[in-house]
Amino acid sequence: MAEKARIARLDDGLAFMLRYENVAWYEDGRVRILDRRKYPLKVEYVECTCHEEVARAIADMVTQSGGPYMAAAMGMALAAYEARGMREEDFIRHMKAAAYTLSHARPTTSKAMEAVTSSCLRVALEALEGGRRVDEAVLLHAIELTNQRYEVSMKAARYLADKIPMGGTIMTQCFAETVIGMLLRECRERGNNVKVICPETRPYFQGSRLTASVAYDMGFDVTVISDNMPGYVMKAKNVDLFTSAADVICMDGHIVNKVGTFQIALAAKYWGVPYYVTGTPDRKHPTVDTVKIEERDGDLVLEAMGVRTAMKGVKGYYPAFDITPPELCAGVVTDKGIYSPFELERYFE
Amino acid sequence: MAEKARIARLDDGLAFMLRYENVAWYEDGRVRILDRRKYPLKVEYVECTCHEEVARAIADMVTQSGGPYMAAAMGMALAAYEARGMREEDFIRHMKAAAYTLSHARPTTSKAMEAVTSSCLRVALEALEGGRRVDEAVLLHAIELTNQRYEVSMKAARYLADKIPMGGTIMTQCFAETVIGMLLRECRERGNNVKVICPETRPYFQGSRLTASVAYDMGFDVTVISDNMPGYVMKAKNVDLFTSAADVICMDGHIVNKVGTFQIALAAKYWGVPYYVTGTPDRKHPTVDTVKIEERDGDLVLEAMGVRTAMKGVKGYYPAFDITPPELCAGVVTDKGIYSPFELERYFE
Repeated sequence: MAEKARIARLDDGLAFMLRYENVAWYEDGRVRILDRRKYPLKVEYVECTCHEEVARAIADMVTQSGGPYMAAAMGMALAAYEARGMREEDFIRHMKAAAYTLSHARPTTSKAMEAVTSSCLRVALEALEGGRRVDEAVLLHAIELTNQRYEVSMKAARYLADKIPMGGTIMTQCFAETVIGMLLRECRERGNNVKVICPETRPYFQGSRLTASVAYDMGFDVTVISDNMPGYVMKAKNVDLFTSAADVICMDGHIVNKVGTFQIALAAKYWGVPYYVTGTPDRKHPTVDTVKIEERDGDLVLEAMGVRTAMKGVKGYYPAFDITPPELCAGVVTDKGIYSPFELERYFE
Repeated sequence: MAEKARIARLDDGLAFMLRYENVAWYEDGRVRILDRRKYPLKVEYVECTCHEEVARAIADMVTQSGGPYMAAAMGMALAAYEARGMREEDFIRHMKAAAYTLSHARPTTSKAMEAVTSSCLRVALEALEGGRRVDEAVLLHAIELTNQRYEVSMKAARYLADKIPMGGTIMTQCFAETVIGMLLRECRERGNNVKVICPETRPYFQGSRLTASVAYDMGFDVTVISDNMPGYVMKAKNVDLFTSAADVICMDGHIVNKVGTFQIALAAKYWGVPYYVTGTPDRKHPTVDTVKIEERDGDLVLEAMGVRTAMKGVKGYYPAFDITPPELCAGVVTDKGIYSPFELERYFE
C-alpha cells in the first residue's frame, strides 16, 4: 500500500515499539498488536480476528498509553471486514456496536476513545455509500488519525524540548509513548544528550520495560529506579524536569494519569523541579469530577513479573490512575504551546 | 535453656517471623537466620558457621529492620565460639575484629550496630575473666538486648496505638518489624480492629512479603498496594495515620528510613494525615549530615522476584534509604512518649 512509505518516513528514527506496524496493524481480517506486557523481554504480537478481541486486548493492557487509540481505529477496520456483505441496516448496527465496545474497553479514557471510533464510523459509512472497500477506507483513516496524533506529539515535544537544559536530566512516569519518543528524537536532533530516569511503574513495569527501552533504543543514558525512589532521586541526581503524558487533562487543570504521577509531582514541587504534562485539554471533562478512575484486578498488585509476592489471604488494591491538582503542574505542553493548567480555555481560542 | 521460656512468653502472640528463634539464633557454633528475602513464599533459614557469614547475611539482607541487631549479637556469640581456646590476647583481637565486621555490614546503621557489638564484646571479656563459657554468656546477653529492644518497642507501640481511631486505617512503609507487631498486638488487645495498608516496598517487597504477612498472621484486614499508589490511596481509602520505623532518627529531626518514606510523608502532609515515626533519637547523629545513605547494587532494581524487567544496557540505581525532614513528621514515638521532631533533646532529659 502506498501509505506505508509515508508511515515509514514519519516514524523514522523512533524506537522499535513506536513504529506504526508494531503498535497495532490491520490487514486481511486481523489486527496484530505488539504485546507491551512482555516487551522487551519477549517480542510477541497478539492477533485479533474480531473487534471484540481488540477490545479485550485493550482492556488487558496488551497495548497502552497512545496504543489503544491506534488499536481501536484498527479494530474499526476489522469490524468493517466482519460486516462485509451485510445489508446496510445491519452494517450500521454492527459498526455502532463495535465503536461502543472498542471505545469503552477501559473507563477512564472512554470519551477520547469515542472521538476515534466515531470518526472511523463516519468514514466507514461514507465508504459504504461510495461503494468503496470499507475496511481499507477505515485502515487509511486509522493511519491518518495516527499521523495526526504523531504530529500533535511532535509539536508538543518541540515545546517541551525547549525546557530541558543541555545535558540535563529528566524524570518520566509510566510510558508516555509517542511524545517521549518524539521528545528524545528532538533532543537528539538538537545535540542535547539528556539523561533519562524512569521510575519502573508497578505493577506492569511500563517505565522499566517500555520507556527505558525506547530511550535506550534511541541511544540515551537511561536509569531505572523503583516507584518509591523518585522523591529521593529527584534531589540526589539533580533532575531538571519531570514530565508525563496524561490520560485526561481536565479543563480545571486536574491531570489524570498513571498512578504515581501525583506523588512524583508532589516531590517535584517540594524540590522546585518543574512538572510538565503533555497532551490536549479535554472539553468533555470540564472538571475532574466527571472522570472515573479505573480500578483493575487487585491481585495484579500481589504479583511481579508473574511471581506471587504476598501471603494468601492478603488483599491487593489497584487504582490504575491518580489525580494531580493544577498547582503541582508548571505547564500543559500542547501542539500549540505551553499553557498554565489554570488557563486551559486559552488552548481553544 | 531457662531463658527460652522467658523469651517464649515475651513474643507470645506475635507473628511467626517475629518470634526470637525465627529472627536469628545462636546454638552450638552456628547462627540460624530466617531468610526474609524469601518469606512467606518459602520458609528457609540461612545457616552461618562463622561470624563473617553472619555479616554477609546482614549485608545481603537475609534479615533487615531490627533483625540485624539480633543477628549481630548472635554473631558475637558465634565469634566467641570461634575463639574458644585462644590465648587472651588473640581472643580480644578476634572479638574486636568480629565486632567491627558485624557492625559495619551495612553503612547507614553502623553506629547503632556498634552499640550492640561493643556491649557484647564487654560481656565476652567479663565472661572470659570470670572463667565462664563465653559463647553462652554472649547468647544470654543477645537475648537480654533483644528483650530490651522489644520492651522499648512495646512501650512506643502503646503510645502510637493511642493515636489510631477505633476501626481506623493505617498505612505502613517497608517492614517496621517488632514495633509493627507490638502495635498490632496492642490494637488487638484494645479491640481496635485496624485496617492495614502496606505499600509493597520495592525492590525486595518487604511491605507485601513481611509487613502484610505479619498483619495477616495476626488476624488483621490487610491490603497491599504498589509504591506508586500511597499518595492516591491515602485519600481514596481515608487513611488515618502513616507510620514507619527509622534506621536513624537524627537529633535535628531528620528521619533516615527505607527509601519511599519521604514521598509518603510528603503525601501525608498534603492530605493532612499525621506521620508518626517510631524509634529512638540518636545522639551519634546530631544532624543528618553524618549519615551515609547506602547505595546497593543497581541491578537489583532491574529485576523483580528474580525476573529481569529491563532491556540489557539500561542501568539501575538503588539508594536503600531516603531522608524525611522534620516538618513532615507529626511526632517521634519513643518508649518515653511522643516528641516533636524539633525537640528531640527532651528525650534525654
